[in-house]
Amino acid sequence: MSASTVAVIGGGVVGGGWVARLSLNGHAVRVHDPDPQAERKIGEICALARRAYAKLTLAPQPEPGAITFHPSIGAAVRGADWIVEAVPERLDLKRMVYASIEIENQGGIIASTTSGFRPSDLQDGLQNPERLIVAHPFVPVYLVPLVEVVAGEKTDPAAVETAKRFLSGLGMYPLHVKKEIDAFIADRFLEAVWREALWLIRDGYATTEEVDEAIRMGFGLRWAQMGLFEGYRIAGGEAGMRHFIAQFGPALQWPWTRLTDVPELDETLIELIAGQSDAQSGHLGIRELEAKRDDNLVAILQALKVNDWGAGRVLAAHEKRLFDLGAKPPPDDISQPVETLRLRVPPDWTDYNNHMNEARYLQAFADATDALMRLIGCDADYIAAGGSYFTVETHIRHLDEARAGEEIHATTQVLEGAGKKMRLFHRLWRGADLLATGEHMLIHVSLKTRAASAPGALVAEKLAEIAALHAGLPVPDGAGRAVGMGR
Amino acid sequence: MSASTVAVIGGGVVGGGWVARLSLNGHAVRVHDPDPQAERKIGEICALARRAYAKLTLAPQPEPGAITFHPSIGAAVRGADWIVEAVPERLDLKRMVYASIEIENQGGIIASTTSGFRPSDLQDGLQNPERLIVAHPFVPVYLVPLVEVVAGEKTDPAAVETAKRFLSGLGMYPLHVKKEIDAFIADRFLEAVWREALWLIRDGYATTEEVDEAIRMGFGLRWAQMGLFEGYRIAGGEAGMRHFIAQFGPALQWPWTRLTDVPELDETLIELIAGQSDAQSGHLGIRELEAKRDDNLVAILQALKVNDWGAGRVLAAHEKRLFDLGAKPPPDDISQPVETLRLRVPPDWTDYNNHMNEARYLQAFADATDALMRLIGCDADYIAAGGSYFTVETHIRHLDEARAGEEIHATTQVLEGAGKKMRLFHRLWRGADLLATGEHMLIHVSLKTRAASAPGALVAEKLAEIAALHAGLPVPDGAGRAVGMGR
Repeated sequence: MSASTVAVIGGGVVGGGWVARLSLNGHAVRVHDPDPQAERKIGEICALARRAYAKLTLAPQPEPGAITFHPSIGAAVRGADWIVEAVPERLDLKRMVYASIEIENQGGIIASTTSGFRPSDLQDGLQNPERLIVAHPFVPVYLVPLVEVVAGEKTDPAAVETAKRFLSGLGMYPLHVKKEIDAFIADRFLEAVWREALWLIRDGYATTEEVDEAIRMGFGLRWAQMGLFEGYRIAGGEAGMRHFIAQFGPALQWPWTRLTDVPELDETLIELIAGQSDAQSGHLGIRELEAKRDDNLVAILQALKVNDWGAGRVLAAHEKRLFDLGAKPPPDDISQPVETLRLRVPPDWTDYNNHMNEARYLQAFADATDALMRLIGCDADYIAAGGSYFTVETHIRHLDEARAGEEIHATTQVLEGAGKKMRLFHRLWRGADLLATGEHMLIHVSLKTRAASAPGALVAEKLAEIAALHAGLPVPDGAGRAVGMGR
Repeated sequence: MSASTVAVIGGGVVGGGWVARLSLNGHAVRVHDPDPQAERKIGEICALARRAYAKLTLAPQPEPGAITFHPSIGAAVRGADWIVEAVPERLDLKRMVYASIEIENQGGIIASTTSGFRPSDLQDGLQNPERLIVAHPFVPVYLVPLVEVVAGEKTDPAAVETAKRFLSGLGMYPLHVKKEIDAFIADRFLEAVWREALWLIRDGYATTEEVDEAIRMGFGLRWAQMGLFEGYRIAGGEAGMRHFIAQFGPALQWPWTRLTDVPELDETLIELIAGQSDAQSGHLGIRELEAKRDDNLVAILQALKVNDWGAGRVLAAHEKRLFDLGAKPPPDDISQPVETLRLRVPPDWTDYNNHMNEARYLQAFADATDALMRLIGCDADYIAAGGSYFTVETHIRHLDEARAGEEIHATTQVLEGAGKKMRLFHRLWRGADLLATGEHMLIHVSLKTRAASAPGALVAEKLAEIAALHAGLPVPDGAGRAVGMGR
């Protein structure tokens, strides 16, 4: 299932999030939702997702799959390889949906988003129960990597493996819950905390805001990267996990752990919570809160990626796949300036005015230089073997401004390429508008001695070939120029 | 209490973390711990903290306070304004410590790190109970902002306010828990999740690793930024909090929420957990895990700071205070090139070889340009009023390499400063070694029209004054030079 046809039944917060993740990963999505507002709501979720993905990664993304809306379940699931069931948590309703699916579709995997029902219970009464699994995602579905995958008694093990591959291909982290249990793993923790929070608020020990601060200023920062046990392993100090349990285990017997029965969620408590939540977050609309949440998720995922850790590793693997899929062959025609960079300006490359920061121009040129180096064979393997080019001199002219989200690209002309020297002239473009030029002198160095050295024969040969072809091109406007020299 | 004398009784993971945070924020710390290894262990925690702070912020940090070790509680607390009690969670032991404190110190605030006892219980028997509070921090104490502040019945409200100010001054987020409750707020959640995790592991539904992945790949990413309720507010969709409760509230009545009694933490379960934890994380030593955790915390805090959100706001406020405290008056002598930048190279400014990235040189020069602009009155207010200088041309020479952690500084010479033009020559230094030079042509612009315009009279005058003084300086080597032109 690379780019396949998928169906989503139910387009609420979870179903709509699935639509966004599926479509933006290149799958055609067929949607059924009786809500007349569904198309608008899903459109808004997709807009949020596109916004987030533009910030999340520079990797080339597939052409989004078409999203179509269908008047019935049967029409929506026709020809679908993957069918998301994302209707409300009522067993009778879900079973009715499955019955409708089975009339029109016998082969696609049915992936229920249920957060509580066991797949074996969902399979009851299906003609082809072997294709039903639970794939339980977390809001916002288009950004959070976790998806719990649970098989029922009648699920075909091959369907589980197919599902895990498919979900990984969407940039997700499928956690295979190996033994059926109500509410699986993550929601049991959410429920435990929710229960405790209800007590604290009902009895006036904390407000919703204080609960949130207690989490996000504290252990939430740890949990985003390590979860529970790995963090505790450290908190145990040099003696590790056994020591931690010995030290904190007894707390389980303390009186305050007895508060384990279920608080009654009556109108008074609901009003108390909703009122406090309004006071805490009501100054921001839901769309603003969603955008803030997404910006933070993006930033945390990117931060973890830099550190090669946790959810950041999932992002890195997904990006690698996207880069591989989107990789272009080297240009056939190297007689003209070569395209060495193409990207959308990421929001964090811009200042408060939304204009690309000064230093990011040099970053773009440095990336273009790297691409030219790869083209002449000075790639990761060559560098690992001890040779590289170092920039010794740079001249940048800023001619126009670029804004977040704009697509920019660079072309590179080789001005000199002989001996240890390589002189490049980059032009940075937005479409046909020239934004900046960069002239760079690089010297080939030995990474062992950090001193100038001759490049390898193959690199020298390829560079000389391009330099000879480019020697016939006009000298670029601005090349060989000092600051303030004018044209 | 700006830079004061503080004492820490008990130097384990929590006490040692307090020592690090206090010392690195400029306070002299007097420690007592009977463990003969305490000095080594605390030294290792402080090394981790120094490492983390160097990555966390570019703000100038105060000279670390001296850490001294004392053979008795009495000797340690002498003259201390702030006394951290971080001994094991036994009421009798804590009371004995307080009695020893009271013999030698009558005025300092006693801040207990207890994670469970109510302060009113701790106050029992004290001669000066009004000065005892709970200040409950979270590991690693030197990085996690949260500290729960709880007063007992006899606590002086003024002591609570003093404590909150003092803790804020350490870059922490004091959460005032207004009503006494065992285990306060955050640990009740940790305990609820711990309990649920023990069941899941004991009954074989998940391993420690699966529990951790279920958290860090999923809701942990949300909790680091929004906590529980604000996230649920969004998950409720357009209908918000009331809808969320209506939709998910009934889950409280489901059978799987009845698992609320306390699992027996017997040897079998302890071995199961410890063995799984070894399998999951045992390939990394505790120090390696700590460093990873700290790198991730730093990256998450910085990411949230960029987004002006949650714990990132606490960091930003702390940095602002550090910058204000460390701010130097404008130089008296502006007849020589002016110091416009001084920092340690942050690790994320470097490549895999630990050398400062090409684009970061331009960032350093751009920051130096900003400092020079502030010096001539082109500051935040001036820019807000609609005027600024834009860089139109840059020439950089790379002369030497800089590595992560090295202190570098920039000096700036004004080559031209009249009319709309400002031409600057920055030199980037490591001590007396010249690393790079940057020549920059800037043009004054109106931010409304984005076109060239004359600067304000005061800015023009100040710039002209410096330009006239610098006109007598030798023309820098490398100024007015084109790429490849040579000397």
